[in-house]
Amino acid sequence: MVQNLNKNIQEGDNPDLTSERLTSTFNTNDMAAQIWGSEKRARRRREISAKIAQMPELHDSKPLPFMTREEKIMESARKLTILTEKMGQIIDPTDPAELYHLNNEVLGLEGNPMALHGVMFIPALSAQASDEQQAKWLPRALRREIIGTYAQTELGHGTNLQNLETTATYDLATQEFVLHTPQITALKWWPGNLGKSSNYAVVVAHMIIKAKNYGPHPFMVQLRDEKTHEPLPGITIGDIGPKMAYNIVDNGFLGFNKYRIPRTNLLMRHTKVEADGTYIKPPHAKINYSAMVHVRAYMLTGQAIMLASALNIATRYSSVRRQGQIDKSQPEVKVLEYQTQQHRLFPSIARAYAFQFAGAETVKLYEHVLKEMKSGNVSLMADLHALTSGLKSVVTYQTGEGIEQARMACGGHGYSMASYISEIYGVAIGGCTYEGENMVMLLQLARYLVKSAALVKSGQSSKLGPLVAYLGVKSEPTSLIDRIPNSGFTEYVKTFQHVSKRQTLKAADMFFGLMEKGEKREIAWNKCSVELNRLAFSQASRLHTRLFIVEAFVRRVNEIADIRIKEALTDLLHLHVNYELLDIASYALEDGFLSASQLDYIRDQVYLYLGKIRPNAVSLLDSWEFSDIELRSVLGRRDGNVYENLFKWAKSSPLNKTDVLPSVTQYLKPMMEKARL
Amino acid sequence: MVQNLNKNIQEGDNPDLTSERLTSTFNTNDMAAQIWGSEKRARRRREISAKIAQMPELHDSKPLPFMTREEKIMESARKLTILTEKMGQIIDPTDPAELYHLNNEVLGLEGNPMALHGVMFIPALSAQASDEQQAKWLPRALRREIIGTYAQTELGHGTNLQNLETTATYDLATQEFVLHTPQITALKWWPGNLGKSSNYAVVVAHMIIKAKNYGPHPFMVQLRDEKTHEPLPGITIGDIGPKMAYNIVDNGFLGFNKYRIPRTNLLMRHTKVEADGTYIKPPHAKINYSAMVHVRAYMLTGQAIMLASALNIATRYSSVRRQGQIDKSQPEVKVLEYQTQQHRLFPSIARAYAFQFAGAETVKLYEHVLKEMKSGNVSLMADLHALTSGLKSVVTYQTGEGIEQARMACGGHGYSMASYISEIYGVAIGGCTYEGENMVMLLQLARYLVKSAALVKSGQSSKLGPLVAYLGVKSEPTSLIDRIPNSGFTEYVKTFQHVSKRQTLKAADMFFGLMEKGEKREIAWNKCSVELNRLAFSQASRLHTRLFIVEAFVRRVNEIADIRIKEALTDLLHLHVNYELLDIASYALEDGFLSASQLDYIRDQVYLYLGKIRPNAVSLLDSWEFSDIELRSVLGRRDGNVYENLFKWAKSSPLNKTDVLPSVTQYLKPMMEKARL
Repeated sequence: MVQNLNKNIQEGDNPDLTSERLTSTFNTNDMAAQIWGSEKRARRRREISAKIAQMPELHDSKPLPFMTREEKIMESARKLTILTEKMGQIIDPTDPAELYHLNNEVLGLEGNPMALHGVMFIPALSAQASDEQQAKWLPRALRREIIGTYAQTELGHGTNLQNLETTATYDLATQEFVLHTPQITALKWWPGNLGKSSNYAVVVAHMIIKAKNYGPHPFMVQLRDEKTHEPLPGITIGDIGPKMAYNIVDNGFLGFNKYRIPRTNLLMRHTKVEADGTYIKPPHAKINYSAMVHVRAYMLTGQAIMLASALNIATRYSSVRRQGQIDKSQPEVKVLEYQTQQHRLFPSIARAYAFQFAGAETVKLYEHVLKEMKSGNVSLMADLHALTSGLKSVVTYQTGEGIEQARMACGGHGYSMASYISEIYGVAIGGCTYEGENMVMLLQLARYLVKSAALVKSGQSSKLGPLVAYLGVKSEPTSLIDRIPNSGFTEYVKTFQHVSKRQTLKAADMFFGLMEKGEKREIAWNKCSVELNRLAFSQASRLHTRLFIVEAFVRRVNEIADIRIKEALTDLLHLHVNYELLDIASYALEDGFLSASQLDYIRDQVYLYLGKIRPNAVSLLDSWEFSDIELRSVLGRRDGNVYENLFKWAKSSPLNKTDVLPSVTQYLKPMMEKARL
Repeated sequence: MVQNLNKNIQEGDNPDLTSERLTSTFNTNDMAAQIWGSEKRARRRREISAKIAQMPELHDSKPLPFMTREEKIMESARKLTILTEKMGQIIDPTDPAELYHLNNEVLGLEGNPMALHGVMFIPALSAQASDEQQAKWLPRALRREIIGTYAQTELGHGTNLQNLETTATYDLATQEFVLHTPQITALKWWPGNLGKSSNYAVVVAHMIIKAKNYGPHPFMVQLRDEKTHEPLPGITIGDIGPKMAYNIVDNGFLGFNKYRIPRTNLLMRHTKVEADGTYIKPPHAKINYSAMVHVRAYMLTGQAIMLASALNIATRYSSVRRQGQIDKSQPEVKVLEYQTQQHRLFPSIARAYAFQFAGAETVKLYEHVLKEMKSGNVSLMADLHALTSGLKSVVTYQTGEGIEQARMACGGHGYSMASYISEIYGVAIGGCTYEGENMVMLLQLARYLVKSAALVKSGQSSKLGPLVAYLGVKSEPTSLIDRIPNSGFTEYVKTFQHVSKRQTLKAADMFFGLMEKGEKREIAWNKCSVELNRLAFSQASRLHTRLFIVEAFVRRVNEIADIRIKEALTDLLHLHVNYELLDIASYALEDGFLSASQLDYIRDQVYLYLGKIRPNAVSLLDSWEFSDIELRSVLGRRDGNVYENLFKWAKSSPLNKTDVLPSVTQYLKPMMEKARL
């Protein structure tokens, strides 16, 4: 038997999908190693998937879209308890990447009753509880004796931490903090698993001692009786109701009616409060960005995975769906033949790779910066924080866009829950809002860019951080993209740099213009960012971020040794740079940096690389090695046998349990009978 | 008491919303008359809403997001039977606009068990059944003795009618047609209400007589027993399963196993088949566009309503939500103060009006063309068909975009089903796919544009239809938008015309280039539309359509006599033309028709009009006069009392029926207990 480069071919597969796989120019296992960071990591993913495939107790007992929210939560809790017992047989539980993959396969995208326990509650205790406190609570949390979450956001208050209303007032007499919710807008609102599953939470509240407000601090709070799981007296708690998606998570509300906790439940790693109410400041009060940076860096991978999942479904289905004849004497063609279909899907394939590579680079950068911090170099974290703010915003937005296009590329069947794409969309698009609303994120980056521009303007370009060094470099008068086509993407990067630099300096000019007119810095910033030019600032941030993504993609491709992989990814990168440049072309046309004929050149390049990528399209997505269990999509099945399985799926839909619905028996039949009289 | 221009102010309202309403520069009832077409129509809407408000049996018995799909269907059937009895007390049932409004209020957006009966089944019988057949079936359908739908699409076949696989073979011996589903892909799939509610359907199948295939024809088919509602022998039928949205409708599948119907069930208004199998052709076989045009023209209004609904929710909420301080000594500001928020919402407000006006104009055009057709002028319908193809595509896409932006503008709470925006999005975005997939629609229009361009190129511009006459007019060398600011939008229209014309002629050049090289027309078209330049063609179609929308908006504003209304809509139109032009600017920068400084001018105009619209923003949406019953949104409540009602809503969510969930009792509690041992 011939060794196929694409490792997904099996007997019984839909031949229309197999023929796509046979044209792969690279080994999909090797590509998986690129995607997941190493050969070992990719292999472990396959091993884990194979083990899960053999454990039916970890599979969905029926398709998730057929379950009510309550049933989904039950199903997820069922799997959680099995995993608690058997996890060690499947993965190395100390390896976060293996745990992440296990969760995606078994529990899926829609969340689970302990989603926040591992990613927020335990990290909050680890970062903010004293050693003594950790000794008391951490082992219990790790053994899952208790389930916890992190409660900060309130009904009336999101990102603006200072305006939270929940108070923790110190009662000297009893040495307790009294937690209180002064009005409805002060209810904790949104924290995941707060509503029903957790019995503990780290709660953020304004700490008040002897009538002085020391600002928001974290407290460890028991919410429910450990035996009965009933809410404790003084606690109002519940689920906030169904959402657009992510409905297995019981996002909750929480109110306190003068609820008392011991003084020692204030998390005291940094701040301390003594029994007599003495407040001891943390040694350095500087904002600690690292938790935010950490979450946002890892969000990129999550978004890349969701984008690639949706594209995987749509591209496989586009290979087996035939519609329309180009030549009337021939059978209907695969819809993947249509250039419009390629144009809908392929640029997003490039983005999924770009996001994955940019994400990996950001995580590395984060680890590097953490090390630097330990040796006293704190400034880099602020730089990285600015970058991740922009990345989070651009990546979540473009991911949502790409997933919806993938869904629509599936025609009517994309709209069916059998595609599962709309659920992926619902989960992914939440990323535009949580962990910092995207518009706010862009303005955070803009603030950093304007500061950097100030260095350029005052002749201090040498002080620019590495991520913004290009702001200090003079660019050529016009782009050379079409004149040096083999520049290894250098001319493309230069064009992105020019556009981003120009927009940043333009935005900064507005700011400094106001400063020169005598406005105070903060007022000038507000005038710029709020009153008049916020849009210009957010554009500068977007352009800077897109430049970084392009550069990360270029850097990664340059590192690759395997020639087949390199070639395939170089084609993808060609599509990426041309497509992205076309998308922001008006910025470069404006000042003549790009000419109309260069724009035509870019368009032609896009068409050219759509065609080049076509033979590898399915394989580029197969390489992410999502199992059918993880994808949960009838349209996206590995074997491409879509139609018989759509029929099977539909027949088992809840509405088909009976031939005659109760709504007919009770209402429609009597209505018709009456009319017949 | 002062007469407020905004008619939505009541005691007990959130003062932050009232203050927005007090700044209205126009009477919202007068604006409603513009939106709904006449003072009378607007007044009737208010009267109908008022009546419904007093009939609790027609209200949702609990919020729809708290119901399972089965419960929603039950609820909807319940209301349907009440409406069947009481409709006449509320509306004039012969007035489609009143019926439409009633349905939106009482049944809502998510469909109902008889959604297709009125809009597809009865019209299909009316258009395609002979007088004799109509006499037999129509009265029964109108009295609701039977429930019907229209079944055309198949599992493996969407838009391409010729490739349907279901057959109706004539059996001369028994004078019956034998309906058959040869394989799984031939199952009827998607028709609304086919799965569970309907007992009849008009089914499209290839008619075969004496081994000759006469192509797809419509047949009246009984699916279920009228007494028991059980499927008849030979019929496989059921619901296709849950979808992204619109889940009250039981979209269905249907298979035939040699299922026999009388010959006289072929709908014989046009084609006839005699007892001996003789086939009698219809007098003129020309494609009848009018049904498609009719549906698409009315879709525009539906989309405008959904866009305005989402914006209404987001804009009201943005007026009561406060976040962030511009000046630290002041309280937090309304998020509507932020220019980014205005930029997210206001251009879409302009589009909602533009779509509504363009929709009304298209309906009028349709009625005019129908009249012309009766006097023999058939050509105009093809022109209108091309236009509505483009409109359907552009409007559904931009509506989806606008609704999602509205949702995200609500921050986290937009993601909650309490906003209801994600449900509106799910329903609206379906419009991109049904009634002709958007990409296919754009190419239909492109074909018409290229034909029109051929007339220009061959010096026959005088033969151009009125909708494309601008293709034959020479444009100035550069735009004059900033030089003649008081041109009454003429210079803007000219700029849109220039851009659309240039792109159309460019696309046509590709086509004619291939023709000149000796390609046959159909092959050249396919090469253009499929192989290489499909994207260019779809762009031309988009630009042409956007031009039409702008022109329709301009025409409407020019007609208005009421000075306050005219001023407010003129501001909105200013925002519209500048925003839209900015969006397509690269096409005009390319050939220097717009200069960089003109682009700056356009941007400034966008900022300027965001500010001008601000005092009217809430009132521009109040004017659509959606009741709270229709909006179904906690965030979008007329009274703006959002937070207490969010809490009330959440408390009644199904998960809060018990303090301890079964998932906890059964799984999580035992897991924690075990860990404590």
